[in-house]
Amino acid sequence: MTNIQPILNGEVRAAARLMRDLDDRRPEALDMLKALFPHTGKAYVIGITGNPGAGKSTVVDAMIAHYRAAGEKVGVVAVDPTSPFSGGAILGDRIRMQRHALDPGVFIRSLATRGHLGGMSRSTFDVAHVLDAMGYTRILIETVGVGQDEVEVMRAAHTTVVVTVPGLGDDIQAIKAGLLEVADVLVVNKADREGADRTERDLMHMLDLRTGDRKDVEIVRTIATRGTAEGSGIAELAAAIETHRGKAWQGEGAAERAINRATAQLAELVRAQLADRATRAMAARGGLHEIAQSVAERQRDPWTIAEELVEKL
Amino acid sequence: MTNIQPILNGEVRAAARLMRDLDDRRPEALDMLKALFPHTGKAYVIGITGNPGAGKSTVVDAMIAHYRAAGEKVGVVAVDPTSPFSGGAILGDRIRMQRHALDPGVFIRSLATRGHLGGMSRSTFDVAHVLDAMGYTRILIETVGVGQDEVEVMRAAHTTVVVTVPGLGDDIQAIKAGLLEVADVLVVNKADREGADRTERDLMHMLDLRTGDRKDVEIVRTIATRGTAEGSGIAELAAAIETHRGKAWQGEGAAERAINRATAQLAELVRAQLADRATRAMAARGGLHEIAQSVAERQRDPWTIAEELVEKL
Repeated sequence: MTNIQPILNGEVRAAARLMRDLDDRRPEALDMLKALFPHTGKAYVIGITGNPGAGKSTVVDAMIAHYRAAGEKVGVVAVDPTSPFSGGAILGDRIRMQRHALDPGVFIRSLATRGHLGGMSRSTFDVAHVLDAMGYTRILIETVGVGQDEVEVMRAAHTTVVVTVPGLGDDIQAIKAGLLEVADVLVVNKADREGADRTERDLMHMLDLRTGDRKDVEIVRTIATRGTAEGSGIAELAAAIETHRGKAWQGEGAAERAINRATAQLAELVRAQLADRATRAMAARGGLHEIAQSVAERQRDPWTIAEELVEKL
Repeated sequence: MTNIQPILNGEVRAAARLMRDLDDRRPEALDMLKALFPHTGKAYVIGITGNPGAGKSTVVDAMIAHYRAAGEKVGVVAVDPTSPFSGGAILGDRIRMQRHALDPGVFIRSLATRGHLGGMSRSTFDVAHVLDAMGYTRILIETVGVGQDEVEVMRAAHTTVVVTVPGLGDDIQAIKAGLLEVADVLVVNKADREGADRTERDLMHMLDLRTGDRKDVEIVRTIATRGTAEGSGIAELAAAIETHRGKAWQGEGAAERAINRATAQLAELVRAQLADRATRAMAARGGLHEIAQSVAERQRDPWTIAEELVEKL
């Protein structure tokens, strides 16, 4: 019997246990997720991404403080290896985060980006659903925005915020290649730095090159300060997110958008389940070492062998 | 009949056509790859990765010049959206690369990082095999080293070079989280910048925390200058790569290492083929829109539906 009541009551220890069990792919954890699903759909999910060094986690920190001040419960999923929220964090950063750790209105979950082959977005979906069922009304998902995985993760968000800073030079290209396409709100952080005007102009220019929906993306300047809701521009950022929410998720087209989001999630879950099968099949296959040896020695080609292995699944 | 002779002759136009056909997943292109496989295995594959802004592509450029000066043919696979070698490059960078475009001893292929869901490493393997069969003796694979995909790509390399720079501060964490584990050679680029000593010390410290193979990783300082083999430290970098090659691929354990590499590639190909199937299955399924709607409206949970879809594959 699946007892979802502790999760629905927002009990942190029960949730932490469930998340661990989900990591371990325990069948009963999946049953729990299925049982929780009808109780989800209340949270508003915000993705925050951008180059390393853009100050994403400081923006996230200021947003937590902002939403907490407004009385909201905030869940955070950190899938950014550079984030102080995530497991890879150095001690100093961990300590800086302790303040939130003591706030029962904030739940922070970091996901390892290693060993989650093709499963990072699945894990993000899963954790976001648990937080949603627990009653967190804002869910912030922080990723480093470079790889395809991260773009997939952002599909789980209602509003995607892309953070950049002045002075990255050519690295603004990293945003161009993919992220700009998913951005609903753009942030120029550390806006007191030299070059903020130019960065904003560059972003506007790149938005103009986008497929005709230029006007839908707001650019907000912030000077985020860790742990204070008053970080310059944070209220404006929250307002820009609300504007996007109103346009995208409350008017015409919202239902279709929700269906697209569900479709993307289904596709991701199918892919992840197939990947699990492949991993199990490869592990179970005792003769794999000999097969790999024949490939290493160029006796057999890997494409034909892969086809044969897939046929046998 | 599969005519691989033009590829074996190193004909650039035939190779470009094959790579396009591979992108389009044409069955005859795959047959070509299979037929080429016995002719591969001569190239030495070097992966170059690191944070955006570390100057990877300048290092790659200097390495091209170095190996060309030594009379080697050099193939480049760029899967880095920030790289001037890649398709996302701005015009200025493209022009800077023209010099190599006119050198028949250099072949540069950039891979889009979008729309290659889980298939980026497969595409890299495929292109590297074509370049190998064409007679390129050095193959340089450049990626942005953040996501899981990129780490997978690096498994295709014989030697992995991780490039960093002084002054990235906390962003060195991005290397810590994953990349350091795959590094065979570490580069401190822009070593004339302030903080190079500290960066090197930090890297040494992080290597010490690694599982006991600290001494196997050389740290090289470079001041790479685009397009000249004389970029300070590039000869040392090439020497460090040769040292690693000797230790890893010419002595004891080399055969086992080759088998591991083949195993990783097989696993990747199996995953990619399953992902193709999933994509086709999802596309073929006319009722997906209705199913997704039932998920969007919380009537059915996506995990159960995904299980059902996988069962039907």
